[in-house]
Amino acid sequence: MEKTTLTSEKCLPCEGGVSPLTREDARPLMNDVLGWDLRDDAKEISRTVKRKDFVDALAFVSAVGAIAEEEGHHPDIDIRYSRVTLRLSTHAIKGLSRNDFILAAKINALLDSDKN
Amino acid sequence: MEKTTLTSEKCLPCEGGVSPLTREDARPLMNDVLGWDLRDDAKEISRTVKRKDFVDALAFVSAVGAIAEEEGHHPDIDIRYSRVTLRLSTHAIKGLSRNDFILAAKINALLDSDKN
Repeated sequence: MEKTTLTSEKCLPCEGGVSPLTREDARPLMNDVLGWDLRDDAKEISRTVKRKDFVDALAFVSAVGAIAEEEGHHPDIDIRYSRVTLRLSTHAIKGLSRNDFILAAKINALLDSDKN
Repeated sequence: MEKTTLTSEKCLPCEGGVSPLTREDARPLMNDVLGWDLRDDAKEISRTVKRKDFVDALAFVSAVGAIAEEEGHHPDIDIRYSRVTLRLSTHAIKGLSRNDFILAAKINALLDSDKN
């Protein structure tokens, strides 16, 4: 499989006026963001990550937050003790844009770097 | 109104085996945690806090996390850009305990100290 280039892209400002990705558009991109789930209506992708404990979960959220802030694109974040659920969608277009996949890929890279 | 003493208390370990507070038990304690809402089934209290932006929301979550860790009692935390919702319940007893009100009062004290 060709290496994803999503992590080398930057989120672009999105003010609306473009169409959200369709399920058919989104499906090939899902291969580049392993661990993420596409919601049935194709308006959101999400991933739940289990960390060691609450402190570790907060450290992860903080690291995700730094990436999100740099990209100017922010996931919804739910913390349940050691479990963190991230939800990505592009509110201006009420659905998914390439930005969501760029951010998801960068969060995956963060998780991969944690393992090494 | 008499000054609350909740902030001077510490959360006690709760392993279950005690009854959750009833709505009647909870109601007077609600006066000591202004800004919090009691869920209809009296099993949870919640508060939504609006911060300046995402970075400020994460800083608030981090500060809440430090208090939660010290008390050994952890709220569910939902971050929606600059808006943070905290939900408190005592899972071991499937409802509210005094611990929830102690933590809520300490989070309120944190918010009050931010204003000064």
